[in-house]
Amino acid sequence: MTDTVISSATKEVVIGFDRPFVIIGERINPTGRKLLAAEMKQGDFSRVESDAVAQVAAGAHMLDVNAGIPLADEPAILAQTVKLVQSLVDVPLAIDSSIVEALESGLSVYEGKALVNSVTGEDEQMERVLPLVAKHGAAVVAITNDETGISEDPDVRFEVARKIVNRAADYGIPKSDIVVDPLVMPIGAMGTAGRQVMALVRRLREDLGVNTTCGASNISFGLPHRHGINAAFLTMAIASGLTSAITNPLESEIVDAVMAADVLAGNDENCARWIAKHRQPPAEGEGSSRRRGGRRRGAATAFS
Amino acid sequence: MTDTVISSATKEVVIGFDRPFVIIGERINPTGRKLLAAEMKQGDFSRVESDAVAQVAAGAHMLDVNAGIPLADEPAILAQTVKLVQSLVDVPLAIDSSIVEALESGLSVYEGKALVNSVTGEDEQMERVLPLVAKHGAAVVAITNDETGISEDPDVRFEVARKIVNRAADYGIPKSDIVVDPLVMPIGAMGTAGRQVMALVRRLREDLGVNTTCGASNISFGLPHRHGINAAFLTMAIASGLTSAITNPLESEIVDAVMAADVLAGNDENCARWIAKHRQPPAEGEGSSRRRGGRRRGAATAFS
Repeated sequence: MTDTVISSATKEVVIGFDRPFVIIGERINPTGRKLLAAEMKQGDFSRVESDAVAQVAAGAHMLDVNAGIPLADEPAILAQTVKLVQSLVDVPLAIDSSIVEALESGLSVYEGKALVNSVTGEDEQMERVLPLVAKHGAAVVAITNDETGISEDPDVRFEVARKIVNRAADYGIPKSDIVVDPLVMPIGAMGTAGRQVMALVRRLREDLGVNTTCGASNISFGLPHRHGINAAFLTMAIASGLTSAITNPLESEIVDAVMAADVLAGNDENCARWIAKHRQPPAEGEGSSRRRGGRRRGAATAFS
Repeated sequence: MTDTVISSATKEVVIGFDRPFVIIGERINPTGRKLLAAEMKQGDFSRVESDAVAQVAAGAHMLDVNAGIPLADEPAILAQTVKLVQSLVDVPLAIDSSIVEALESGLSVYEGKALVNSVTGEDEQMERVLPLVAKHGAAVVAITNDETGISEDPDVRFEVARKIVNRAADYGIPKSDIVVDPLVMPIGAMGTAGRQVMALVRRLREDLGVNTTCGASNISFGLPHRHGINAAFLTMAIASGLTSAITNPLESEIVDAVMAADVLAGNDENCARWIAKHRQPPAEGEGSSRRRGGRRRGAATAFS
């Protein structure tokens, strides 16, 4: 049982074994979103605002916030984005950058215990990011590549994860504050990508005792009907022990698949959340006009 | 590597580890379908015909055929149904009855190597069904309950499976011709039902080396939005090693989930079947009128 607690000023989310799966909304990220990048660079955060609200409404338990815009002042923009998003929604955030100064800037304005996204197994990176994580009492995503790149051998990736866990311990960061990303390759390019993630997630859980996350959408890169692959991937990874993912909650298939996986893994007591979301229409004889909203709404829209 | 080969007169299907998952269409079964039961009893097989054709068109690799109608001549009706279905579609069949005489009657007219559905771990049942399976050189679904009923303890169910495998060996039936059903309980009634199946399927594969099947739709009994639960259940069970299921291919979510799971388990080489089914519209500039059918069809429907 490993619990990773992340918080905002008012809300706590626990990533953990035998707990509901944690969806980290991926949308606030200008990488590959030219329009968003241009707007953020010009100080227009309207799309960030709508993405924040929409993702939480759609079922995100946390949001990832990234401000990686070429030739822009990433530390300043990331801090501004973090403050803005925290003023709009109460879910905890993952502060996402490959630039240590940007992580530091984001952490300095963050209220609560953040998830730092990310540290790799590269020595120089660990030496710069881990002290920052320790100083802010944050949790951190550990990505399983190092100076040699991303190994195609999952055993090597496992050893990188172990190295990061050990190095973090030197800085006083407990294993429970490390969420390992096993690295998801596109299945269209590498036919073993799915099996690898499943095997590695299981090992990270059983042998290393850490929580896990991944950039789930990467699995379907280049394939048609990506939602179908993404949804199946998440349920299969959850069956193998994955405890969170950075993904798109605006794809309803994703949220449905995760909620169903929670039911099937026994992490939705009495199926209560599933039933609340997918409540049946009233029994026959209650009137079909009430199908969507139950008695009160049906009466208001159809009979008043 | 365990391969269970099932065949019709002209077509072979292999249920096996590291092979595409086998969907066995469940629809030709009057249990719970009053109209179908009444029609079949009166000799009207029109619905059987349309169900057979529709299920294969939707992606079923095999069809289950059941004629369990109260107060009807089940052996005669089952034989008639088997012959009819074999005249319409070329996929192999599962001959499904709890009455040994009906299994015998169905097997006597079947062309190919059938899957007998099913034998339990009850001594009397094994002594009657297994010789029949051996005589016809068929394969058989082994259900993991015995005289004491269905145990809630998956270890007991595993031992029942082992008992059936051993007893079958006495009749010369190889382990590769036994497809074990771990028994799927409704998750709404038993919160551990999903975890149980996943753990048991894994053990049946790793420790007993047998293929597996299940009545997948049972998992969602009593819950809203059943398709969502069924699809997630199948992908999670496939991640745990399930190699076939008796389910409803007319639910497109089911077929999509299984095909995606095949991709992710590495059993759809180069994602070829997924891409063929979900082919993208042509690149922009090719003309939106060609979206659905590619160049030839687009030209025929839009430009001729």
